[in-house]
Amino acid sequence: MKAEAMAAALSKVRERRPLVHNITNYVVMNTTANALLAMGASPVMAHAREEVEGLVDLAGALVLNIGTLSSPWIEAMALAARHARARGKPVVLDPVGAGATDFRTRSGRELMKDATILRGNASEILALGAAEGGARGVDAQHTVDQARATAVALARRHGLTVAVTGPEDFVTDGSREARIRNGHPLMARVTGTGCTASAITGAFAAVVPDAFEAAAAALVFLGLAGERAAQQAARPGSYAVALLDALDELTPEQVIAGARFQVTPNSHV
Amino acid sequence: MKAEAMAAALSKVRERRPLVHNITNYVVMNTTANALLAMGASPVMAHAREEVEGLVDLAGALVLNIGTLSSPWIEAMALAARHARARGKPVVLDPVGAGATDFRTRSGRELMKDATILRGNASEILALGAAEGGARGVDAQHTVDQARATAVALARRHGLTVAVTGPEDFVTDGSREARIRNGHPLMARVTGTGCTASAITGAFAAVVPDAFEAAAAALVFLGLAGERAAQQAARPGSYAVALLDALDELTPEQVIAGARFQVTPNSHV
Amino acid sequence: MKAEAMAAALSKVRERRPLVHNITNYVVMNTTANALLAMGASPVMAHAREEVEGLVDLAGALVLNIGTLSSPWIEAMALAARHARARGKPVVLDPVGAGATDFRTRSGRELMKDATILRGNASEILALGAAEGGARGVDAQHTVDQARATAVALARRHGLTVAVTGPEDFVTDGSREARIRNGHPLMARVTGTGCTASAITGAFAAVVPDAFEAAAAALVFLGLAGERAAQQAARPGSYAVALLDALDELTPEQVIAGARFQVTPNSHV
Repeated sequence: MKAEAMAAALSKVRERRPLVHNITNYVVMNTTANALLAMGASPVMAHAREEVEGLVDLAGALVLNIGTLSSPWIEAMALAARHARARGKPVVLDPVGAGATDFRTRSGRELMKDATILRGNASEILALGAAEGGARGVDAQHTVDQARATAVALARRHGLTVAVTGPEDFVTDGSREARIRNGHPLMARVTGTGCTASAITGAFAAVVPDAFEAAAAALVFLGLAGERAAQQAARPGSYAVALLDALDELTPEQVIAGARFQVTPNSHV
Repeated sequence: MKAEAMAAALSKVRERRPLVHNITNYVVMNTTANALLAMGASPVMAHAREEVEGLVDLAGALVLNIGTLSSPWIEAMALAARHARARGKPVVLDPVGAGATDFRTRSGRELMKDATILRGNASEILALGAAEGGARGVDAQHTVDQARATAVALARRHGLTVAVTGPEDFVTDGSREARIRNGHPLMARVTGTGCTASAITGAFAAVVPDAFEAAAAALVFLGLAGERAAQQAARPGSYAVALLDALDELTPEQVIAGARFQVTPNSHV
Repeated sequence: MKAEAMAAALSKVRERRPLVHNITNYVVMNTTANALLAMGASPVMAHAREEVEGLVDLAGALVLNIGTLSSPWIEAMALAARHARARGKPVVLDPVGAGATDFRTRSGRELMKDATILRGNASEILALGAAEGGARGVDAQHTVDQARATAVALARRHGLTVAVTGPEDFVTDGSREARIRNGHPLMARVTGTGCTASAITGAFAAVVPDAFEAAAAALVFLGLAGERAAQQAARPGSYAVALLDALDELTPEQVIAGARFQVTPNSHV
């Protein structure tokens, strides 16, 4: 995969304005809706059992996020995910806080079965991959490097693309891996930047058939927007605003010029 | 209706600070609460069956928004709407996504029975007015012009004021119509601007007895704030911030100077 | 208590990054998560009965906020509060809108039993302390002075620290009282600033064993951030952004230099 393909994927999102159906957490609903709108996609947030299948039919991708999970929401997510899988639509799963409680780990594992792309921090991916658990709250306590082998194993066992985000992002589909060096430390100072990564991954997956390429392109794009925002703002309140502006402003040409990533065959497992 | 009456309505909101009771969607709760506060009104967000009637008693207007609907919330909305109608308080209904799923269309139609003002985009109004449906997600796929006849018919059949928002807004109570040309394209790049229009309509309806005049004044006011914000910011993140600032800043005198609208008897049905 | 101790408490928050578990309202989830992150703490928002006890075990403090209450959420709050009390973890209760409806007053009183710190406006504190009620919506209709005697009585009867916020804040644990004069009128023009005060109080309570000192330090810190933000922004949209920036920017030295408060033995009851 080349930066040109990522730039082309961004152009496709902006031309087609794919509808991205989010069943996500209360904390980030506004932020991720605005992020999708800013980048050129079209968000819908809906969780009622009565309508999630109908909305999946209209959508180009489904994004599930368990940040403020409860049993009825997990059931709606499972219903939507099964339907999306049956319809061949990509499903992005963000297992927020997996490992912090059994309820999150169990819910993440159940939803993983129908996911296309799993996007989490290192602790979440480790929790889903093993009986280890041990995440504290919703912040990563492990490094991306620690989670690489687990990510590859999860990708192979479940036929998933797994994206582990952190200071350096790692994406694998079990045979290829991408390491992405775009991004900025301020991204971790705003709530829901990981959730935004998952939502944006949904937008790319709606227009790029290869899930691995969609996930890598999404993380390069968001990382570049994060870098651009840091030129505008140095503190978290104004940085969050600048990040939305950057998602709107960033051009395909700037993606080609700024992308810092490497794709190789999986080497380390 | 003249611009002077709209300006006077804005002054009234700022003097009386009406309590606006919102049963609204998760995505925009923060945004619409801040919009109401910024313009000078007083928001309360509450949806529990145990208290919605009590809060309607305290409020000057009730705003219902089905953006992230579920059955328990629709029941609470219906309960609150019936109570508001019985007490003679104005009810604004925002049927977000009507037409996208049957669940939304049905819920919108049920709540419409006790509404005073219906505020939606063209696709939503068409979906409520006919068996057509066909909205995609929560974005308008139809033009305001296409929805005019349906809006007038709905207004007459249900005794409603219907406000169809878009590049040009159309408001009718079945005998009069207003066409409003204030606003800015960036408003559509921020999530929940339509929801903000409904919330602000609630604030005006709390102080202006004529629902048609309240809705028209609200849309002129928000449109002018949207124009003002576009002088401060050119991208969606900073635009959303500037829009809140503009709701606070805009004076009655500026409403008189900037209002671009026309009120005529209904001519086209 | 001296300003130096408040500054030291802020440093401790930033060193230890305490996990603050919030069961809070939909309107402010994003804002308070961002406020906690900006000041240097670590937020988690979670309300499912299946996991609230597990998250309390991981957290340094629990913050309960009834702004958009419903029965299942109140049950989860009660469960979490009992567990936190049993584990010796501080519980901050924000009884939003107590007095506006019986449901809120009753819920606030029930949760008060397991609270460590009660943080509300004057009307809410009066409603919890008496059979008076009478709050309108979620805005304070009473002055802080009117609520002082009730705050002291509540503190003594329930072994609580009570913080009444307003133009001047009043904090008491039944034997000492603090009057805090930091803050800015624009704070009342942004939704959820009171909720942010409660969340920040949770962060301080996680690192300061004396609840009275934690509450006073939190209100001085937020008040100073509010003053600083007012130097950057004059209207509510940009002010909310500047407030988050200020929570990140404010140093312990600036707390020492800017704190305006007085601690005395309770004198007036």
